Amino acid sequence: MGEAAEQMTGDKWVYRFGGGSADGNTGMKNLLGGKGANLAEMARLGLPVPPGFTLTTAVCTAYYDRGETYPDGLEKEVNEALAAVEKETGKVFGDNDNPLLVSVRSGARASMPGMMDTVLNLGLSDVTVEGLAKKAGERFAYDSYRRFIQMYCNVVLGMKHDIFEHILDDYKERFEYNLDTELSADDWKEIISQYKAAIRKQLGKPFPDDPHEQLWGAVGAVFGSWMNDRAKLYRKLNDIPAEWGTAVNVQSMVFGNMGETSATGVAFTRDPSTGEKVFYGEFLINAQGEDVVAGIRTPAPISRSRADAISSDEAPLEEAMPKVYNELVEVANTLESHYRDMQDIEFTVEDNKLYMLQTRSGKRTAAAALKIAVDMAQEGLINEEEAVLRLMPGQLDQLLHPTISADAKRDVIVKGLPASPGAAVGKVVFSSDEAAERAEKGEDVILMRVETSPEDIHGMHAARAIVTSRGGMTSHAAVVARGMGRPCVCGAGGLHIDAEKGVFRSGGREFKKGDIVTIDGAEGEVLSGEVDMVNPDLSGDFGKLMEWADRARTLKVRTNAETPHDVETAISFGAEGVGLCRTEHMFFESERIPVVRSMILANDKKGREAALSKLLPMQRGDFAEIFRLMGERPCTIRLLDPPLHEFLPHSEDEMAEVAKSAGVDIEVLKRQANELHENNPMLGHRGCRLGITYPEIYEMQARAIFEAAVQIAKDTGYSPIPEVMIPLVGTRKELDILKEKVDATAQAVFKETGTELEYLVGTMIELPRAALQAGQIAETADFFSFGTNDLTQTTLGISRDDAARFLKDYEDQGIYEKDPFVTLDQDGVGELVRIAAERGRKTKTGIKLGICGEHGGDPASVAFCHRLGLNYVSCSPYRVPIARLAAAHAALQKADA
Amino acid sequence: MGEAAEQMTGDKWVYRFGGGSADGNTGMKNLLGGKGANLAEMARLGLPVPPGFTLTTAVCTAYYDRGETYPDGLEKEVNEALAAVEKETGKVFGDNDNPLLVSVRSGARASMPGMMDTVLNLGLSDVTVEGLAKKAGERFAYDSYRRFIQMYCNVVLGMKHDIFEHILDDYKERFEYNLDTELSADDWKEIISQYKAAIRKQLGKPFPDDPHEQLWGAVGAVFGSWMNDRAKLYRKLNDIPAEWGTAVNVQSMVFGNMGETSATGVAFTRDPSTGEKVFYGEFLINAQGEDVVAGIRTPAPISRSRADAISSDEAPLEEAMPKVYNELVEVANTLESHYRDMQDIEFTVEDNKLYMLQTRSGKRTAAAALKIAVDMAQEGLINEEEAVLRLMPGQLDQLLHPTISADAKRDVIVKGLPASPGAAVGKVVFSSDEAAERAEKGEDVILMRVETSPEDIHGMHAARAIVTSRGGMTSHAAVVARGMGRPCVCGAGGLHIDAEKGVFRSGGREFKKGDIVTIDGAEGEVLSGEVDMVNPDLSGDFGKLMEWADRARTLKVRTNAETPHDVETAISFGAEGVGLCRTEHMFFESERIPVVRSMILANDKKGREAALSKLLPMQRGDFAEIFRLMGERPCTIRLLDPPLHEFLPHSEDEMAEVAKSAGVDIEVLKRQANELHENNPMLGHRGCRLGITYPEIYEMQARAIFEAAVQIAKDTGYSPIPEVMIPLVGTRKELDILKEKVDATAQAVFKETGTELEYLVGTMIELPRAALQAGQIAETADFFSFGTNDLTQTTLGISRDDAARFLKDYEDQGIYEKDPFVTLDQDGVGELVRIAAERGRKTKTGIKLGICGEHGGDPASVAFCHRLGLNYVSCSPYRVPIARLAAAHAALQKADA
Repeated sequence: MGEAAEQMTGDKWVYRFGGGSADGNTGMKNLLGGKGANLAEMARLGLPVPPGFTLTTAVCTAYYDRGETYPDGLEKEVNEALAAVEKETGKVFGDNDNPLLVSVRSGARASMPGMMDTVLNLGLSDVTVEGLAKKAGERFAYDSYRRFIQMYCNVVLGMKHDIFEHILDDYKERFEYNLDTELSADDWKEIISQYKAAIRKQLGKPFPDDPHEQLWGAVGAVFGSWMNDRAKLYRKLNDIPAEWGTAVNVQSMVFGNMGETSATGVAFTRDPSTGEKVFYGEFLINAQGEDVVAGIRTPAPISRSRADAISSDEAPLEEAMPKVYNELVEVANTLESHYRDMQDIEFTVEDNKLYMLQTRSGKRTAAAALKIAVDMAQEGLINEEEAVLRLMPGQLDQLLHPTISADAKRDVIVKGLPASPGAAVGKVVFSSDEAAERAEKGEDVILMRVETSPEDIHGMHAARAIVTSRGGMTSHAAVVARGMGRPCVCGAGGLHIDAEKGVFRSGGREFKKGDIVTIDGAEGEVLSGEVDMVNPDLSGDFGKLMEWADRARTLKVRTNAETPHDVETAISFGAEGVGLCRTEHMFFESERIPVVRSMILANDKKGREAALSKLLPMQRGDFAEIFRLMGERPCTIRLLDPPLHEFLPHSEDEMAEVAKSAGVDIEVLKRQANELHENNPMLGHRGCRLGITYPEIYEMQARAIFEAAVQIAKDTGYSPIPEVMIPLVGTRKELDILKEKVDATAQAVFKETGTELEYLVGTMIELPRAALQAGQIAETADFFSFGTNDLTQTTLGISRDDAARFLKDYEDQGIYEKDPFVTLDQDGVGELVRIAAERGRKTKTGIKLGICGEHGGDPASVAFCHRLGLNYVSCSPYRVPIARLAAAHAALQKADA
Repeated sequence: MGEAAEQMTGDKWVYRFGGGSADGNTGMKNLLGGKGANLAEMARLGLPVPPGFTLTTAVCTAYYDRGETYPDGLEKEVNEALAAVEKETGKVFGDNDNPLLVSVRSGARASMPGMMDTVLNLGLSDVTVEGLAKKAGERFAYDSYRRFIQMYCNVVLGMKHDIFEHILDDYKERFEYNLDTELSADDWKEIISQYKAAIRKQLGKPFPDDPHEQLWGAVGAVFGSWMNDRAKLYRKLNDIPAEWGTAVNVQSMVFGNMGETSATGVAFTRDPSTGEKVFYGEFLINAQGEDVVAGIRTPAPISRSRADAISSDEAPLEEAMPKVYNELVEVANTLESHYRDMQDIEFTVEDNKLYMLQTRSGKRTAAAALKIAVDMAQEGLINEEEAVLRLMPGQLDQLLHPTISADAKRDVIVKGLPASPGAAVGKVVFSSDEAAERAEKGEDVILMRVETSPEDIHGMHAARAIVTSRGGMTSHAAVVARGMGRPCVCGAGGLHIDAEKGVFRSGGREFKKGDIVTIDGAEGEVLSGEVDMVNPDLSGDFGKLMEWADRARTLKVRTNAETPHDVETAISFGAEGVGLCRTEHMFFESERIPVVRSMILANDKKGREAALSKLLPMQRGDFAEIFRLMGERPCTIRLLDPPLHEFLPHSEDEMAEVAKSAGVDIEVLKRQANELHENNPMLGHRGCRLGITYPEIYEMQARAIFEAAVQIAKDTGYSPIPEVMIPLVGTRKELDILKEKVDATAQAVFKETGTELEYLVGTMIELPRAALQAGQIAETADFFSFGTNDLTQTTLGISRDDAARFLKDYEDQGIYEKDPFVTLDQDGVGELVRIAAERGRKTKTGIKLGICGEHGGDPASVAFCHRLGLNYVSCSPYRVPIARLAAAHAALQKADA
């Protein structure tokens, strides 16, 4: 039922459930809250739900609209509902013989941890406790009574726990009791009277003995808790409007702690870790729900098979209460087929009778989600599209990388940002050269740096994982590591690296170079020693689900890659093209970097051209290899982007070495490096600005691309379609000038080789100005690729390398809900993307639009791209499956809506 | 006449003028070009214009539309016009007795230096030269003929000058002539025959002897020149559409070089240097127009009074040709009253008869522009609004600063960017400390640095002028220098400063510390030695014109200032408020910086608060002084903006000093500085991000503001209205959080002091995201101030500190017409300003909008702000008058349109 339709039913404040029927149903979560709607649904299904009723969220809204008073008619409806519960249970609220006791719980639309705790056993008083005693024994009754008083005073009357704890502790000390269980009914009676005296003293009035007063007190407390600071903060952080309100669930009590014929437990209809189709759960005899969660007693498994699997000595429910067990299995089956999803259920057994207290879709691991989705589709319970929607794209990461074994002992040295998932073990090294050397000898190494730069690429490649003490989720280390599929922990501020001394310190501990650590990239943790890992199992289920996903999506998925290895990985993960080949990554290889440096240090165009002519065959070879691997898939190649000083050495030692090998005076080198230094390199002399000032660089690159494409066309018989991408364009004129040069180079190569090929020339939209001017730029551009990394930096004015220092505070204070470098900021950056897409298309209908920032692998951002109707997203190889799944979700959800 | 109306008259291709009438008039510049329209107008006025005709710009357009052929009917119209000229002059085109000779000149709508040169004496041939010889003597005729051949071959036939020069040189060598004047008519005849032989050899055909062929050749050359590379580039750079086309002016020749009764000259109706109402000009007896400009002979002044003034021995025109002089004065008066502006006229006297060849509004110095505008308004020739429009805002700069005397000899050491106008003399120093020390002793110093940083503020204040070898028009040095009104030359790349050795070098010369130099900030030059200067004369005219301007404008003008001295300067220049008080500038003073540093180096909030409590009274004092000076004018105070590391020392030496004085280990200091280091500080931990992470800093500043305001309110009886401005906001939540803190601080201060004041809390819009989210942000903000410096940096993705390296290339290649840090990029940054203004107003009608970037003092940008309906612009004190005048222009032009 839609929200609007529900609000029309606002003339009814109270919805009953129980006894095989209910006023509400599971579709009414907005009105009844999640818990209330599911209780109603279970009652409708004829399941044994303790009867009760729900005060709707509309009551909450009305309560606040009316200056914290209840709407007319509410009291009457509550009394009628209570009467129905009395009738159903045969108990009477406030009765001294067979009293009805209830629980009172909040229940909002969305789960809200900031809300009021539960009040149990409400209805107990000096009068009704006698009734309970008759039924369940005196000690049980008085123990329940004093618990209720404590809970009520705390939750409803706002008193502190310690008042009651002091009384209890003093009493136990006086009578030399050690455990609560040693106290008798009379002891509890005495304590209760002390409690009540303390309450009267603090509040100036007695504890409410009238169950109705208690009930309204609890209801008021739930509504009040909607506006407490915790709840407000939580709503602010999660963008939940205050108008939603909370519901209140009042339900007759059942007791799992009334002796050996009573029990309480939780169960899953399938194994939430593996997804296996086995009934899975835990229970405790003679206990209340809270006890299972609290972990004081170890619960027993529900089924014999599970008990065997974990070698449990405890009798499973299957044997301890076979009748209840069978009934529970039947309920579980009913619920799963009804909800068509794996259910997480809570139950209580009171005196051998089963009661259902809760059901909801169960949380599960990624592996379980995959298996359950595929199994259910194959069982015919859901269709393939639904199966696709059951696996969250974000979970896929867990399936693609090794992970730390769940049972492993973790000795955390330091925690940082979970920059790139996966786990790895190795010896710590502090330099990329050492990483490369040791890796060549077959050692597993972990590269640990304050931060990384393009000069570290070889070390990062050689390393099993990367750790940095500085930088955010989209720092150089994080981006490159994700691209390579290396686990990475970034911005581990607690880490102090002293590379000179060959040690690192954290939390007072010191480790040496060569010490073994394990990296948990998914958690952002560095663990001491070697920790057990689980390898990914990309079984048939994975392939099957991805196939279904591909069938559903319309958005293409490409990859950001430049090495043959990455390109191959991406293809194996289903990439449909290269969306971003960063040519400069090829410049850092050890035999090339001296040539690149001699190009930079050349004093004139002639000197630069000499160096470029040496680079030409190298780049041609790179491109040829990529074209060969990609077959007929499209390849977008970005011309040189970073500022030239990134290629120069930084430290004194490296300078000396480079000066020596280049035959240049070190002072000259230093001066040149200093002249190239920039205050804000992100906003400096880079991207197409290099192409404008040093056209010979772009000409060499264009030549390498076209020569490689022609060569492959000749070798293989099929024609690659290169997409030449000019970065950092801010005005149409830049693109005009550079496209002219690319075209001229293409024509020259075609003439020289006698082979003509199709090709495109386009641009990245990564500056706000480019987005605003997209209509003009589209006159020249064949395609746009949204470079949302840089577009985020410029639109938000945040350097991703420097953001770590404040972005944490920003997330904590709810300024940015999510790291904008991970999930596209749709209101800001997204609006520019939308404007650019709109204006670009207005000029050139059908202009090819893609995205190649890190966001291309983020599910929410992929959905956004789908909604804008982009042609493709491009992401690092290991995120290709995530993007494929996310694109399918977006398409299916859009079709839904 | 409007453009559309003119294009309707396109059925007529040729417009005649001369003999007291004309087909066209001065309003038809689009059709006739500037020159043609004014010739027509002069003819209409009955002035002695040699008759002629204009082929319209429509001919040019038709010529290109029709594949470079002339439209039907053109030839007939030309022949008819030619016949009319023949009739009017009594001469005949191609006649061997009394030949008509003409000049052919291009003439576009806008002056275009890239266009074709003039062809004079067209119509000469072996036949007609005889006719000219009869009239003007044989030597004159043949000299004219060989000049015409040379000119025609070069301009029309595309031959190189040197072919003719070789022939002439060889001839002179052979006959041992030194000067051209030594050659006889026969010599010229011989040379002409050699010329013709050379032409036939090179072109394979003879020089055209038919005057009609010559005429169409010259017309075709003018139209062809419209599409030559120089003209195309010029149009590209100046956004002139190719469709405009050029006109061609054909005019009968008159000769100023026909002996002692002939002359040629140029004149201004008022003195273009001073504006004085005197007839001003120069002339040469027996000369052609070109000779006056060429400067081979020194022209004589026109009037006796001028001749006396410059002690000229030459007879002025007034005495040499009194009749002609009187006629010329009358013509000048006619033209000035007709055009209602000072005219720049060209005239020729042929055999004692005066001819007018050109009139146009004369270029003038700023001082002259001011005086002429005020005088003309007082003479009743123009009204006050017109007078305001006659002074270009950009010229005002010249009036406000000392300037280098026009007659001074300039020995230029190095040229850089004209970063801040004005001139100054002093001794060169290389450090701010030394600048301060020497200035205290009364020395005039020039501070010369590679670049400046906030630590140099005291040195910049102490110096008479600043020179840097690095940084653009909006580098730190440039911005601060303009703010202080100090002359500044920036980015003088040719300058090599060796501060250690105490020398600087440029172009092979070396200078020492202490050497005297003169800075010309308006030209961007560093001159050797002391050069004469002229002090600004802010006479009554200036005040009068500014008063008229103020009456016309609607945009308010505020100032960016924080020191009492700057605030006073700004008030004297007419500032109506402070638009930007950068509180951090106050942090750099020598007694404060140690406290600021101890705040930064504090390990916790407590330590920071201790330091802040020392800063509080200092800041309070600053604000109190500003409030006192500003009276009831509004003051916008921006809370701390720059990243904290800007306040830490950078060099090893300074580190040691700071560590010592702060009692901190230098290694600790280094580590902390290193931790605060940012890769892109522009996009780093600054602005409101500091307020979010260190709320105590903003709380201190807010307290200082409110305590100061309350104090001034108590002292003076009037209430300052502080406008607290939060910088670098990107999302509404940032502002929500920080406004809450400012409000709380305000309430606390009001409660403590028992005084309540009005105040505003607003934000800078300086990030693209803020502009896009302006609708949301306006819910919290009382005002927006567009920080277009940073908005330009982020929108364009260009760091102004690093832009110098490529922005020159960008301007040269026409990518950015103007430095976007000087003139607002209206298509990109401007669109964001427009979006923000629109969305802000939609949320909060009447929200106060201003601009406080450097653009606030740039006339084109001020006009843009006016069009958007902003409330005010704010600029550095010395630009306040410019902004006032620019705002008036904008208002008057808008009213016009």
